[in-house]
Amino acid sequence: MVTRDDILQAAERIRDRIHRTPVLTCRAMDRLIGARLFFKCENFQKVGAFKMRGACNAVFSLGEQDAARGVATHSSGNHAQALALAARMRGVPAHVVMPVGSPAVKREAVLGYGAQVTDCEPTLQAREETLAEVVRSTGATFIHPYDDERVIAGQGTAALELLDQVRDLDVVLAPVGGGGLLSGTAIACAGAGRPPRVIACEPEGADDAARSLAAGRIIPSVDPDTVADGLLTSLGGLTFPIIRRHVEAVWTVPDQDTIRAMRLIWERMKIVVEPSAAVCMGALLGRSREVAGLRVGIILSGGNVDLDRLPWAVRQDEPKG
Amino acid sequence: MVTRDDILQAAERIRDRIHRTPVLTCRAMDRLIGARLFFKCENFQKVGAFKMRGACNAVFSLGEQDAARGVATHSSGNHAQALALAARMRGVPAHVVMPVGSPAVKREAVLGYGAQVTDCEPTLQAREETLAEVVRSTGATFIHPYDDERVIAGQGTAALELLDQVRDLDVVLAPVGGGGLLSGTAIACAGAGRPPRVIACEPEGADDAARSLAAGRIIPSVDPDTVADGLLTSLGGLTFPIIRRHVEAVWTVPDQDTIRAMRLIWERMKIVVEPSAAVCMGALLGRSREVAGLRVGIILSGGNVDLDRLPWAVRQDEPKG
Repeated sequence: MVTRDDILQAAERIRDRIHRTPVLTCRAMDRLIGARLFFKCENFQKVGAFKMRGACNAVFSLGEQDAARGVATHSSGNHAQALALAARMRGVPAHVVMPVGSPAVKREAVLGYGAQVTDCEPTLQAREETLAEVVRSTGATFIHPYDDERVIAGQGTAALELLDQVRDLDVVLAPVGGGGLLSGTAIACAGAGRPPRVIACEPEGADDAARSLAAGRIIPSVDPDTVADGLLTSLGGLTFPIIRRHVEAVWTVPDQDTIRAMRLIWERMKIVVEPSAAVCMGALLGRSREVAGLRVGIILSGGNVDLDRLPWAVRQDEPKG
Repeated sequence: MVTRDDILQAAERIRDRIHRTPVLTCRAMDRLIGARLFFKCENFQKVGAFKMRGACNAVFSLGEQDAARGVATHSSGNHAQALALAARMRGVPAHVVMPVGSPAVKREAVLGYGAQVTDCEPTLQAREETLAEVVRSTGATFIHPYDDERVIAGQGTAALELLDQVRDLDVVLAPVGGGGLLSGTAIACAGAGRPPRVIACEPEGADDAARSLAAGRIIPSVDPDTVADGLLTSLGGLTFPIIRRHVEAVWTVPDQDTIRAMRLIWERMKIVVEPSAAVCMGALLGRSREVAGLRVGIILSGGNVDLDRLPWAVRQDEPKG
């Protein structure tokens, strides 16, 4: 299992290759919730998301020979960009299997970082089969978007920084999709001197983490449906046990609260965050009494948005997806 | 005429009442332009715009008796919010004459800061007549949005901070509407140890500054038409002579470049800026050769945008305004 030492080593390994992102505060938000909120701005991270941390740690953990054959992944978004950039930094190839219909801005970014893109149908099976073929033919190392110890350790460095930047946090909120960020955050916090509680925030329409924790076993999402398109994936075999052990609760969030939170963050804080990053603030809109007077860390996971498809601009009669 | 000492005093006066805003950099932008760009983020300022500096300096410059009778202004936007907040900070009334049809987000913000709002028709004459009536009936002090020495000195504190935060700037770019920010910026820079050149950036559809400087006299805009709705106003009797003396050039910018720049800033830097704030970056898109290799300061003037009316989302057949 990933340990806090793994996260400390990851932080050392990637330090000069990522941004130490700022923590922002906003009095209007504090007043709205009745707590002190500290926003860890991973939307300012390289490639616009925390995913750069895990990808970078994974790529630079590889031995020379493995690295030379490149890395590969399947991802519709931020992990793909991150892996592409990390590979370019190390001077090795990156192969990305990407479902057709991915947002244009994300596809272009992956290509811009020099990755090879192989299209596949937007099903898990097609992604895995296409990836297997790419790995077989190139010898590249598969870097899973979240169910990978190197990735989890890398993602944990965001919370590590947050704890260094802000003293005496009572609670840390992180969004959960596959659980890479959440499990890294949980391990980083669990080992802190005065450990904050860690609470996961999850879209109602993709609530596999809440159901899995309640059931005591992984219950994958079936046809998840949420505006938070970075949180569609389900917990993995590595992330589930960590989350089960270290995460106090999972708060599920209706999309309407996530959209309202996203807009509030844009309007009041003047920063661009993606829907998946707004889920934690969305959770607080409905649960402010549970954090009254507390010092709350919030990981804003990313800022990669298609500006032509903002959630408050999509008409009711338009098809989704 | 406003001096650099006035700006230094303003900085002292408002220090604890405003944000010292950060300066952001972005490698993608640097590569695009071929220069080193330093973005002074007044979109993170209180009320979301540099206007807080001038309004705050003006309100806190007043003697006790004048202050008690309140302040008044006509403004469709950021200055009104700023004056309202500054007045609330000092515990005195603020009266805002606002044209009907102002963006909802700006009107609500002014009301939220506790100002009295008096509607008027969206013409200069109606604004001035309504304002005169408000001043007559309340005894409030009129604080002009830009043609006021206290306001100019306050706006100059943004450039003062920028020069303190970034060494050896070659050029500083500021947008110009009425010229409050620009003239304050010019005075702050002119008195610096190693003064950077100051260049104004102005929408093509509201190019009174360019024409006024060319003619050597103020030539007000007639029916200005630009997406940069904070830059519709024309130079004033106080700002024109300062700009004439200290500003090296005025670069006019087509709206399409401003919109492209605004979108680039949102997508690459993950921050929300209003169209008026994107005019300088828009200018650079067409003039990168003129700043090749230079260290360029850019004042991002504000971030107050109606998220339901983003310029790239407005259809060609929709009415403007």
